[in-house]
Amino acid sequence: MTRSVFVINAGSSSLKYQLVDVDSGRALAGGLIERIGETTGEAKHEAPGIETVVERRMISDHEHAFGWLLQQFDRHGPSLDGAQLLGVGHRVVQGGARFDRAVRIDEDVQQQIEDLAPLAPLHNPANLQGIRSARATFPGYPHVAVFDTAFHLTIPPAAHRYAIDARVAAEHRIRKYGFHGTSHQFVSRRLAELLGRPLDEVNSIVLHLGNGASATAVRGGRSIETSMGMTPLAGLVMGSRSGDIDPGVIFHLHRMAGLSVDEIDTLLNKRSGLLGLTGTGDMRDVLQAADAGIERAVEALEIVGHRLRGTVGAYLAHLGRTDAIAFTAGIGENAARVREVALAGLEGLGIVLDPERNAGRGERRISADGSAIEVWVVPTNEELEIARQVADLVG
Amino acid sequence: MTRSVFVINAGSSSLKYQLVDVDSGRALAGGLIERIGETTGEAKHEAPGIETVVERRMISDHEHAFGWLLQQFDRHGPSLDGAQLLGVGHRVVQGGARFDRAVRIDEDVQQQIEDLAPLAPLHNPANLQGIRSARATFPGYPHVAVFDTAFHLTIPPAAHRYAIDARVAAEHRIRKYGFHGTSHQFVSRRLAELLGRPLDEVNSIVLHLGNGASATAVRGGRSIETSMGMTPLAGLVMGSRSGDIDPGVIFHLHRMAGLSVDEIDTLLNKRSGLLGLTGTGDMRDVLQAADAGIERAVEALEIVGHRLRGTVGAYLAHLGRTDAIAFTAGIGENAARVREVALAGLEGLGIVLDPERNAGRGERRISADGSAIEVWVVPTNEELEIARQVADLVG
Ligand SMILES: Nc1ncnc2c1ncn2[C@@H]1O[C@H](COP(=O)(O)OP(=O)(O)O)[C@@H](O)[C@H]1O
Ligand SMILES: Nc1ncnc2c1ncn2[C@@H]1O[C@H](COP(=O)(O)OP(=O)(O)O)[C@@H](O)[C@H]1O
Repeated sequence: MTRSVFVINAGSSSLKYQLVDVDSGRALAGGLIERIGETTGEAKHEAPGIETVVERRMISDHEHAFGWLLQQFDRHGPSLDGAQLLGVGHRVVQGGARFDRAVRIDEDVQQQIEDLAPLAPLHNPANLQGIRSARATFPGYPHVAVFDTAFHLTIPPAAHRYAIDARVAAEHRIRKYGFHGTSHQFVSRRLAELLGRPLDEVNSIVLHLGNGASATAVRGGRSIETSMGMTPLAGLVMGSRSGDIDPGVIFHLHRMAGLSVDEIDTLLNKRSGLLGLTGTGDMRDVLQAADAGIERAVEALEIVGHRLRGTVGAYLAHLGRTDAIAFTAGIGENAARVREVALAGLEGLGIVLDPERNAGRGERRISADGSAIEVWVVPTNEELEIARQVADLVG
Repeated sequence: MTRSVFVINAGSSSLKYQLVDVDSGRALAGGLIERIGETTGEAKHEAPGIETVVERRMISDHEHAFGWLLQQFDRHGPSLDGAQLLGVGHRVVQGGARFDRAVRIDEDVQQQIEDLAPLAPLHNPANLQGIRSARATFPGYPHVAVFDTAFHLTIPPAAHRYAIDARVAAEHRIRKYGFHGTSHQFVSRRLAELLGRPLDEVNSIVLHLGNGASATAVRGGRSIETSMGMTPLAGLVMGSRSGDIDPGVIFHLHRMAGLSVDEIDTLLNKRSGLLGLTGTGDMRDVLQAADAGIERAVEALEIVGHRLRGTVGAYLAHLGRTDAIAFTAGIGENAARVREVALAGLEGLGIVLDPERNAGRGERRISADGSAIEVWVVPTNEELEIARQVADLVG
């Protein structure tokens, strides 16, 4: 008998869903509805054993999107009735200093997610729209919010506070929240399993490298430091985001280049990172260009590698003793060359890759046998992690 | 016979000078003129064997300040004629991507320092005023510019480039320049002497912790990474500067707190760091408060320590193999507690302090005998470094 959770990730104009079998971890169905509210939306529904449905049509709002997806389950399957639905899990980006774990959604929780909107103006309102529509669509089921930030609430003040005016920070809730928490939690837990050791004895560094990228230092299953900050702009070099940069650059750009704050925001969030350095934000293209000897792609990889090495070094210091490093997400799982530059020259710190293992595929150890710190590729699965947290809470 | 250099550090409303015996390294005289241009200036002149002169009086401009100091040498000594002056050394903050070493000043160099003013709007124009006045005051001598940034020009692109739009960066000369270079150079060189090894074989981390603070990774006498950025705002927690912070915080403060760019600039540069966290920017007061158990001072020290440990870890990674770490400047030389928190928990990385040595005074090793990486306190002497570079160039 299946026990399943319906997992929802709602953006301002998109809706991603997955029906997850919590016990096997398998996706029973999934889909993506894009350009909601525009005249030409696109909707996709897929499941093992059925032909993928793709429709181009106008989808006016999130409620309409849910109507569409219910129809697909009805028409093409799988049957939601047969899926033994335990509840609905919602990815919520910003849980602030309040939510340190998944929580059952009620009016009060919705209000709190709304109160946190100033800290995630692009995400929380959209997540909330998804929650409202989903509660109308699946009225009989428990709904659970799973926060991107929750896993990082164990980060101590020494690491989550910025060195700014303490009253200003308190008034405007300025601190490091961190993101990708669901992924870091999933991967660090899986890593402990793979090492065959109890979670609370394993110290690890998780490098989640996707379009967004972040690193987390995990001590005994708890996040103690992460590279994103109050917003997802800080830290590593990303697809289109700069990651860390001297804040003085912003003042300089404002004064000398005459850019407005909004323009600089767009510059650093949307036109920087790989995109700003090379003209493409897609790592596959950057790697291809680097292989072809294109200078700016080669240099971009060096910048990416330098930033990663510095972060790994910093986290080795924060952890004191590190058992393993895990790479995950689109780049982390698939780009051997990035993993190589990320750890190049760290042999003296006990980190030695095995080139052949690094060139392989799938979940595996990629460090050499003599490496004091093991290195692994661990595919992430945020939907499964959300489903499990929902099941734990309501199952 | 003495060979001396007159060293000048000109701020917009201040003038610091020192007459340095380049061979012995001793200061033959020194002074500080403050609040130039205001109605109540203050001027001090001191030298071994003479009573310190302190005058409160109006000093209208830098030329006037030079007039005053010449008078003091005339009246109270020491005699400038007897000092066998080789030349005059000027501290210049921003040398851009152009000046990788000290350079003899001519009209062309002055023009280039002026062209770099947009990158150091508070400093280069003042440095230039000092240069102009000094050339008028000491017309017969070679004048040399010694740049805070020069030592860091060896930092490779992977470390000095930000991950932003490459054209914007090129157009506005946005990159990491780094500062305190004269100090980092002096200390890393002295450290190699103390280790009894050739400079080009020593890898070190220098922690310059004063009101401004920066860390540098030095490989074989060359800077390969530093914590300050395009401006001196980036990196470590400082007296009144935040150091690193999620750039997204700036956008948030602008939108949510309604602060202007100038106000945020002031907040991060003048009201942050120790001052913002505790109410005082002076580390002595913070340490006293922490000893008295005042919570916000204890927490500030933890934030300072966390940032330092992360930086040390990052530089261990960048260096691959590290021989020694040196603490310098006001805090680095004098605050045993800060050195302790900076390296706490790094035993696993081969760094072990000896508490008794750490509690001592003066230039010395403070690591335990078994520490794989040696740790030293090395008092900095930027005036002497400037004097030596002048002597090397013109002597
Ligand atoms: N085979 C591959 N080799 C290199 N990079 C890859 C590969 N597959 C995907 N990527 C990269 O992964 C990134 C997207 O990762 P992903 O985790 O899907 O991002 P996100 O979930 O943050 O949108 C893109 O930069 C893409 O180029
Ligand atoms: N004995 C001491 N113990 C602790 N901190 C000290 C001591 N002496 C000086 N400091 C600190 O050193 C800092 C100033 O360092 P300094 O190198 O003179 O700064 P800068 O040259 O950048 O202005 C101040 O925070 C001061 O409190």
